[in-house]
Amino acid sequence: MSNTHEIPQLFEYPAVITLPVQWGDQDAFGHVNNTVPIRWFESSRIHYLQQTGWPTLKIEENLGPILVAIHCNYRLQLEFPDTVHIGARVARVGNSSVTVQHLVYSQKHQDTAAEGKSVIVFFDYGRQKPVRVPEDIRSAIERMEGKT
Amino acid sequence: MSNTHEIPQLFEYPAVITLPVQWGDQDAFGHVNNTVPIRWFESSRIHYLQQTGWPTLKIEENLGPILVAIHCNYRLQLEFPDTVHIGARVARVGNSSVTVQHLVYSQKHQDTAAEGKSVIVFFDYGRQKPVRVPEDIRSAIERMEGKT
Amino acid sequence: MSNTHEIPQLFEYPAVITLPVQWGDQDAFGHVNNTVPIRWFESSRIHYLQQTGWPTLKIEENLGPILVAIHCNYRLQLEFPDTVHIGARVARVGNSSVTVQHLVYSQKHQDTAAEGKSVIVFFDYGRQKPVRVPEDIRSAIERMEGKT
Amino acid sequence: MSNTHEIPQLFEYPAVITLPVQWGDQDAFGHVNNTVPIRWFESSRIHYLQQTGWPTLKIEENLGPILVAIHCNYRLQLEFPDTVHIGARVARVGNSSVTVQHLVYSQKHQDTAAEGKSVIVFFDYGRQKPVRVPEDIRSAIERMEGKT
Repeated sequence: MSNTHEIPQLFEYPAVITLPVQWGDQDAFGHVNNTVPIRWFESSRIHYLQQTGWPTLKIEENLGPILVAIHCNYRLQLEFPDTVHIGARVARVGNSSVTVQHLVYSQKHQDTAAEGKSVIVFFDYGRQKPVRVPEDIRSAIERMEGKT
Repeated sequence: MSNTHEIPQLFEYPAVITLPVQWGDQDAFGHVNNTVPIRWFESSRIHYLQQTGWPTLKIEENLGPILVAIHCNYRLQLEFPDTVHIGARVARVGNSSVTVQHLVYSQKHQDTAAEGKSVIVFFDYGRQKPVRVPEDIRSAIERMEGKT
Repeated sequence: MSNTHEIPQLFEYPAVITLPVQWGDQDAFGHVNNTVPIRWFESSRIHYLQQTGWPTLKIEENLGPILVAIHCNYRLQLEFPDTVHIGARVARVGNSSVTVQHLVYSQKHQDTAAEGKSVIVFFDYGRQKPVRVPEDIRSAIERMEGKT
Repeated sequence: MSNTHEIPQLFEYPAVITLPVQWGDQDAFGHVNNTVPIRWFESSRIHYLQQTGWPTLKIEENLGPILVAIHCNYRLQLEFPDTVHIGARVARVGNSSVTVQHLVYSQKHQDTAAEGKSVIVFFDYGRQKPVRVPEDIRSAIERMEGKT
């Protein structure tokens, strides 16, 4: 994955994952179905959060992230075979929310295939209400974004 | 499905489909995964387009819709078992684009579970460029939206 | 769903669910993808187990079913739009295992689209070993299969 | 992927693909859902067929493979994060059918996570009937299986 460092479109993305397009990702139009980049966004978001130390894999002590909104612009029609590099970066940290930007880069097209953002809220599943993003997560995000 | 006519949140939606939540729609958080409402949006969008006479099922004569953007706000954590009613209505018809609004209503919660919109463009797959939404599709949309 | 009682292929299936084929269930061959009937099997299996009183939705007290094998014969190429009725019945109860038979009936084709079976084991997730199918589940299965 | 050559379980598999487990592959039991290895089987099957020169990506001249049966034994409960290596090999070539064996190896468990087989038939979609597996495909399979 080291070569993703040479892709200008991904320069600002501290977390990048690489996935092959699978044949079954395609729908009856012969293109990657629109739900697939949304799954890729999820995978890149979790890859990012893992690196901040946030317990994203399980809901621990009733605390976990919850997705409240997603937006995606589809730029290219992707087909199998191809390989995509999916970047995630945090654009904004609010009181309880974090806005993550996503970019999907197609190796075959050598261009951005989709980009968008998701808004997650740190959530107390037990009390069913948002909680403030903890200080250690804020610090980890700042480190990843190179703002410290 | 006739009872969906009694759901105020869906009053403005001329096309409504009803689907059960499947157990496998849930992810490791025990809730319906975020990609699932995006699939529901797609199904409701196609249900709407079918009623306008647009050839949505196959790309015929190289013409078909192409999705260019999607937005979804997740309002409730859905769980199996539940039944959802998904409404679609056209908010705007541009030159080559159509903006569709979607609403997912949970029968268990008796409330809106998710809402959002998608932007589709009528596209000539052969020449790889957008084309003007045909007049008969415009008329069909106007009829469905009760604007004629 | 009451009309599924008139489908001879489903006469022996005490649990039947009905689902629409979704457009997005289709792959690049323009047919329902092979993973989709496997999801339908899962949904019908869980529908059956729910009726036996088994806690299938969550792992409770560390006990839950675990799938150990699946087999599917694909008989027809399904397309959107269509509606499928999926039947589940128990073919055999062993010490810790239950063999479930599945049948997918296509309303459009008026014929069996796929059939197969799955083997589940009642499992203690805490101790990571199979446990004997409890007596009340055995009785519930016998009642459903009309063998009491 | 070169290191997959050192995995004894995959020694006999001439085609191997490597995929990360995605967080969203997990279901409400916190394990990879049973439909996911079926998708992996598909991806490895297509990877194999690509190497035989068979036009698997599109239906060309109305000829293409069609899946008629699948079987999967689930051996391990997989979780995110993990990486899987999926092998495919041809066990038998009949008149119009090819039986493919699949093996999913988990890097985290250092063991076989699932194995099974699929039966594909070479099919004339235009006339809707099976056709004999062409000689060049037979030769390509023999070469891949090291039987020439």
